[in-house]
Amino acid sequence: MFRNQYDTDVTTWSPAGRLFQVEYAMEAVKQGSAAIGLRSRTHIVLGCVNKANSELSSHQKKIFKVDDHIGVAIAGLTADGRVLSRYMRNECINYSFTYESPLPVGRLVVQLADKAQVCTQRSWKRPYGVGLLVAGLDESGAHLYYNCPSGNYFEYQAFSIGSRSQAAKTYLERRFENFTDACGMIWSRMLLWQ
Amino acid sequence: MFRNQYDTDVTTWSPAGRLFQVEYAMEAVKQGSAAIGLRSRTHIVLGCVNKANSELSSHQKKIFKVDDHIGVAIAGLTADGRVLSRYMRNECINYSFTYESPLPVGRLVVQLADKAQVCTQRSWKRPYGVGLLVAGLDESGAHLYYNCPSGNYFEYQAFSIGSRSQAAKTYLERRFENFTDACGMIWSRMLLWQ
Amino acid sequence: MFRNQYDTDVTTWSPAGRLFQVEYAMEAVKQGSAAIGLRSRTHIVLGCVNKANSELSSHQKKIFKVDDHIGVAIAGLTADGRVLSRYMRNECINYSFTYESPLPVGRLVVQLADKAQVCTQRSWKRPYGVGLLVAGLDESGAHLYYNCPSGNYFEYQAFSIGSRSQAAKTYLERRFENFTDACGMIWSRMLLWQ
Amino acid sequence: MFRNQYDTDVTTWSPAGRLFQVEYAMEAVKQGSAAIGLRSRTHIVLGCVNKANSELSSHQKKIFKVDDHIGVAIAGLTADGRVLSRYMRNECINYSFTYESPLPVGRLVVQLADKAQVCTQRSWKRPYGVGLLVAGLDESGAHLYYNCPSGNYFEYQAFSIGSRSQAAKTYLERRFENFTDACGMIWSRMLLWQ
Amino acid sequence: MFRNQYDTDVTTWSPAGRLFQVEYAMEAVKQGSAAIGLRSRTHIVLGCVNKANSELSSHQKKIFKVDDHIGVAIAGLTADGRVLSRYMRNECINYSFTYESPLPVGRLVVQLADKAQVCTQRSWKRPYGVGLLVAGLDESGAHLYYNCPSGNYFEYQAFSIGSRSQAAKTYLERRFENFTDACGMIWSRMLLWQ
Amino acid sequence: MFRNQYDTDVTTWSPAGRLFQVEYAMEAVKQGSAAIGLRSRTHIVLGCVNKANSELSSHQKKIFKVDDHIGVAIAGLTADGRVLSRYMRNECINYSFTYESPLPVGRLVVQLADKAQVCTQRSWKRPYGVGLLVAGLDESGAHLYYNCPSGNYFEYQAFSIGSRSQAAKTYLERRFENFTDACGMIWSRMLLWQ
Amino acid sequence: MFRNQYDTDVTTWSPAGRLFQVEYAMEAVKQGSAAIGLRSRTHIVLGCVNKANSELSSHQKKIFKVDDHIGVAIAGLTADGRVLSRYMRNECINYSFTYESPLPVGRLVVQLADKAQVCTQRSWKRPYGVGLLVAGLDESGAHLYYNCPSGNYFEYQAFSIGSRSQAAKTYLERRFENFTDACGMIWSRMLLWQ
Repeated sequence: MFRNQYDTDVTTWSPAGRLFQVEYAMEAVKQGSAAIGLRSRTHIVLGCVNKANSELSSHQKKIFKVDDHIGVAIAGLTADGRVLSRYMRNECINYSFTYESPLPVGRLVVQLADKAQVCTQRSWKRPYGVGLLVAGLDESGAHLYYNCPSGNYFEYQAFSIGSRSQAAKTYLERRFENFTDACGMIWSRMLLWQ
Repeated sequence: MFRNQYDTDVTTWSPAGRLFQVEYAMEAVKQGSAAIGLRSRTHIVLGCVNKANSELSSHQKKIFKVDDHIGVAIAGLTADGRVLSRYMRNECINYSFTYESPLPVGRLVVQLADKAQVCTQRSWKRPYGVGLLVAGLDESGAHLYYNCPSGNYFEYQAFSIGSRSQAAKTYLERRFENFTDACGMIWSRMLLWQ
Repeated sequence: MFRNQYDTDVTTWSPAGRLFQVEYAMEAVKQGSAAIGLRSRTHIVLGCVNKANSELSSHQKKIFKVDDHIGVAIAGLTADGRVLSRYMRNECINYSFTYESPLPVGRLVVQLADKAQVCTQRSWKRPYGVGLLVAGLDESGAHLYYNCPSGNYFEYQAFSIGSRSQAAKTYLERRFENFTDACGMIWSRMLLWQ
Repeated sequence: MFRNQYDTDVTTWSPAGRLFQVEYAMEAVKQGSAAIGLRSRTHIVLGCVNKANSELSSHQKKIFKVDDHIGVAIAGLTADGRVLSRYMRNECINYSFTYESPLPVGRLVVQLADKAQVCTQRSWKRPYGVGLLVAGLDESGAHLYYNCPSGNYFEYQAFSIGSRSQAAKTYLERRFENFTDACGMIWSRMLLWQ
Repeated sequence: MFRNQYDTDVTTWSPAGRLFQVEYAMEAVKQGSAAIGLRSRTHIVLGCVNKANSELSSHQKKIFKVDDHIGVAIAGLTADGRVLSRYMRNECINYSFTYESPLPVGRLVVQLADKAQVCTQRSWKRPYGVGLLVAGLDESGAHLYYNCPSGNYFEYQAFSIGSRSQAAKTYLERRFENFTDACGMIWSRMLLWQ
Repeated sequence: MFRNQYDTDVTTWSPAGRLFQVEYAMEAVKQGSAAIGLRSRTHIVLGCVNKANSELSSHQKKIFKVDDHIGVAIAGLTADGRVLSRYMRNECINYSFTYESPLPVGRLVVQLADKAQVCTQRSWKRPYGVGLLVAGLDESGAHLYYNCPSGNYFEYQAFSIGSRSQAAKTYLERRFENFTDACGMIWSRMLLWQ
Repeated sequence: MFRNQYDTDVTTWSPAGRLFQVEYAMEAVKQGSAAIGLRSRTHIVLGCVNKANSELSSHQKKIFKVDDHIGVAIAGLTADGRVLSRYMRNECINYSFTYESPLPVGRLVVQLADKAQVCTQRSWKRPYGVGLLVAGLDESGAHLYYNCPSGNYFEYQAFSIGSRSQAAKTYLERRFENFTDACGMIWSRMLLWQ
C-alpha cells in the first residue's frame, strides 16, 4: 500500500526522503548478469559472465573498449550501457583531440556520473538501468570505478556487480591481499567463475 | 494487481528493476508472423512467412533491401519496421556518399539499436514494436544480427523470430552443422516451412 | 476490466503486445460508409456509398483527385481523410515540379504510411481515423493500395473498406476473374451496390 | 460506466472507433441558439435567433461579414465563432491582396475545416465548440456550407443549426421547392420564426 | 457524481456540450464585489463597491484608466483584471503611436475578448477569473461593453456585474428611461448603493 | 470529499469560482513568522520576528534592502521571498540606469504583482508562497504595500502579516492615531512584540 | 489519508500552506551520513562521517574543494551534491576571471540557494536531495553556511547535518565557547566522532 504513491515518478520524493525509481533502476543492475573488476598497481582486469542465448548466437558484448587506456564492463540493460559507452568514447576522442593527451579516468567518471544524475531529475526521462565498472590507466596509475544509476561513483580495488555478485565480493575481500600482480589476478578470476 | 502500477509508462521502473513496456513491445514481436535468417561464410538467407489478407491482395512486404550489401526481415508492427528500414537506407546512402565505401553492417546495427534505445527513455514515445533480422556482407564477411525493441542486438549464425519461432530455432540448432553452403541453407529452408 | 489500463494512450503497449488505440482507430474505418476499389491492367475504378444528410444537402465528397494519375477513396473520419489527401496533393506537386515527371504511386503510398506511423508513436497525437484506397497509374502500370491507420499499406487487385465491406469483399473474391476489362468492372460495381 | 474512460481526452479513441470529445463539441452547437441559411441561384440569406440578455443590452452579434462576398452565421460558443471568423477575414484579405480576386468560397471552407481538424488531433487543445454556416458568392455561383467542429463541411441548399433546428430543417425540406427567388426565401424565413 | 469527470480541465467538453471550467471562472466574477456601468449618449459612468480590508488600508483599485477615452471596472480576481487592463493600455498606446488617433473602443474590446478566448483552449492555462466593464468614447459615440471570461462580449446601455448585481440590474431596467443625462445617471447611482 | 477534486492544480477553478491552490499559498504566508510595517508621512518602519534555529546560528534574513529608497519584509517561504527581492533589485537598477531617477514604489509593486499573477495561470508552476511588505519613499511620499501570492497588492498605513498577525493588526488599528512621528512608531513597535 | 493528495507533486500546495515534496527532500538530508562544520574567526573546519562500502573500496568523496577559499561538505544524495559543487566551481572561476578577485562566500551561497529554489517551482523537476555546509574565507572573514533543499540558507558558527546530527548539535552548543582557536576545534572534532 505504502509504496504505491511515491514510486512511479522519478521526480517524486517519498516521505522518508527516498527516490524509489532510482532504487528500482539499481535493482535492474542487480538482476543483470555479473561483472567483475580487479586492480593491481599496474594492471586492471575486467570480466563478466556471458551466456549465449542459443548455440547459434555469438556472445552479447558486455565489455567495451572506450579508449586505448579505458574500458568498461556493464551489468543491467545492455542497450543503456552501450549508449553510455559510446558517450564515453566521444568524450575521450574530443579530449585527446583538444589537449593531445588521454582523458584522465577520474574526469571521465565524473562526467558519466553527471549524465546519470540528470536522468534522475527530469520527469520525462528515466534513470539509466545499468551499472558500469570503468577501468583505466592514466598518469596517476590504475583505477577501477563503479558508476551506478543514481549518479554516484565509487573507487574500488576490486568489485563485482550484477546477479549473485555478493559471493564474488565476499571471495574478493578474503583473497585480495594474495593478488599481488596481474597474473595472480587473472589466475584468481579463472577460479572464481568455475 | 501487481502489474497495474508499473507497466503503463515506458519511463517507469518496476520494483524488481524491469521496464514492462519494453517487455510488452517485445511481446509484439512474438505475435508477428515468423521470420528466419541463416548465414554461411559467404551467403546469408532471409525468409519469412507471408499470408495474404485475401485472394486479391498481394503479399505484404516484410523483407526490405537496405543497400546492395544489406537486407532486413521483420516481425511485429510492419509500419515500425518500414520506418526503421528507411532510416537504415538513409544511413547507408549518406555513408557511401561520404566515404565512397559501403557502410559496415555492424556499424549500422549499432546505430539502429541506439535509435531503438532512445524510444525506451522518453515518456512521450513508445518502444518500437518490431524485431529486425539484419543480414549483410562486408569486408569482415557475412553477418546476421537481430535487433530487438529494447535497443539490444545479437549476432547469430541462424535465428528465427515471430510467432512459433521456437520450433524453427530448435530445428536450426539441431541441423545447422549440415548446412555447409548456401544451397544447403536454401534447401533446408524449403523443408522448414512446409 | 482488462482493457481499462492499456487502451487510453496511444504510446502504451498492452501485455499481449498490442496497441489498442491503433486498433480502435481502425474500428473507426470499419464504422465509416463503404468504399470500394477494383483494378484491371489498365484501369482502376473507385466507388463509395454516399448518403446525403438531408434532401437539401449535396453529397459529402469522399473521393478525391490527388493528381492527374492518382485518386483516393476514403472510409472513416472525413476530416482526417481530407487533410491526408491535401498532403498527397502537395507531395505530387512538389515531385513533378522538381523531377518533371509524375510521382510514382508506390512512393506516395509509402510517404502516406510513414505520416500515419508517426501518429502512432507520439503521446500528444492520435492515430488518423481514416482508411484510404489509393488508386494510381504510373510507368509500372495500374495500382490499388489500401493505407490503414496503423501505418501499414497493402496492394490489392480489388478491395473494399468501411461498414458492411465484408459482403463486398466476398463478392469480389468470387467474381473477380470475370472482370477482364474496365467495362466489366464498372458494370459489376453497379450490381454490387444495388 | 462505459463512457468514463474514453471521453475526457480529445486524442483518445473509444473501442467503437469514436472520438467522444468531438461529439461533445458538436453537442455544444446543438445547444446554441438557432441559425439558418437558404440559397437560391443568385442570393443567399442567413438568419439567426437573437435574444438579448436584458432590456438594456444590445443583441450579441452572431452573423459576421467576412468579405464583400462571404458571410457567416454561427451557433454554439460565440467566442470560438468570432475567432474563426477573424481567421477567415485574414485569409480573404491576404488572398485578394496576392491574387487581386476574391477568395473562392469553397477554398475558404476547406481551410476553415482544416483548422478545425487540427484541434481534434492535439492533446493540449480542444475542438472548437461552434458550427458555422458559411454563405458566399463567387464565379461558380452562390454557395451555402456548414462547417462543424469535427473538421467536416457539407454543402446545402438550405440548412439550420442550433437548438430546435430540427423543426426548421423539416419545414425547409417540405417547402424549399416553393422558394424560387430571394424574395420568397426571405418571406418564408419571416414565417418560420414566428 | 456527474460533474467529477468533465470539470477539472479547461479543454474537456462535457457530454452536454459545456465547458465547466469556463463556467466556474464566470462564477468567480459573480463572487467578486459588484461593479456597475451606465451610459448616456455623451457620458459613461463606472462605479464599484469597495470595502477596505481594514481601517488602515487604502481601497483596492478596481477602476482603471486605460487611455484618455477608455476606462474599465472589474469584478472577480483583481490580479487578472490588472493584467488585462495593462494589456489594454499597451494596445491603446501602440495604436495611437501608429495611427495618431485613439483606438476605437469596439476594436479594443474584440482584442480583449480574443485574448480571453485563447485561455479557454489551451490545457496549460486557465480562463481569466475576471469580468470587465469597458467604457469608452470614440467617434461613434459612447460605449459600454461587458467582457466575460468565456471570451464573449456584450454591449449594454447599463449593466452590473459581481455579487448581488441582480438587484442592481433589476433597478436599472426599471429606471433607466429616467436617466436622460449624465447628472441623472450619477444621481441615480448614489441612490442605488445606499 | 468536495475539496479533493479542484485543489491540486493551480489552473483548475472550483465550481464556486475559487482557485484553491492560490488560497493554500496564502495559507503559507499565514504560517510564516510575523512581519509588520508602519508608515508616517515621512518615515516607514519594517519589523519582523526572528527566531534563530539554534544558539550558534545567525538570524535568517527576512528584511531585504531593495534600493536606497525601498525595502521589503517577508513572511512565508524565505526562498521565494529572496528570489522576488532579487527581482525587485534588478528592476530598480535597470530603471535608475535608464531614467537616472529612482523607480517609483507603486510601479515596482505593480511589476511584482504581475510576476506573481503569472504563477497563478501556468499549470507547470506554483504560486509564490510568500507575502511581502514593500516600504518605499519616492516623490509622492512614503508608501507601504502588501503584495500577496494571488497577485494582488494593497496599500496600508500599517499592516502585519504572518502567524499571529491578527493581534498585531488589532493593536495597530486601535493605537495608530497615536503614532504621529517615526519615533512613536518605533517605540510602539517595541511594546508590541514584548 | 490526508497526505495522499498533496504530496506527490512539487508544485502543489497543501491546504495548510506546506510543500510536502520539499519537506521530503529535506528528509533525504536527514537520512544521509552526518557532516559537521565549525568556525573560528580565522579558520573553518568541515568534517563528515565516511563509511566505505566494502574493505576494497575507497571512501566516497563527500567534502569538495570549490575554490582556494571555499569548500563544501554534503549530506544526502551524493550525486546531487556533486552536481551542485561543480556549479559552484564554475561560478568561482567565472567570477575570478572577470573581476580578478575571489568570489565572496555570501554571494555564492545566494546563487546556490536561488538554483535550489527554481527546482521547487517547476513541475518537471524535483528539489535537490542534498544539504550543503559551505565554508569559506573572504575579506569579511570566515563564514559557515548551510544551504538546504528548500532554497533557504543560514549562517552558523557551528552546525551539523545528516543522520544523528542532533547529538552533534547539542554537543556543539554546550562546548562551543571552549573552542577559541582552530586547534581546539580540530581537537574537539576528534573527540566528537569517537
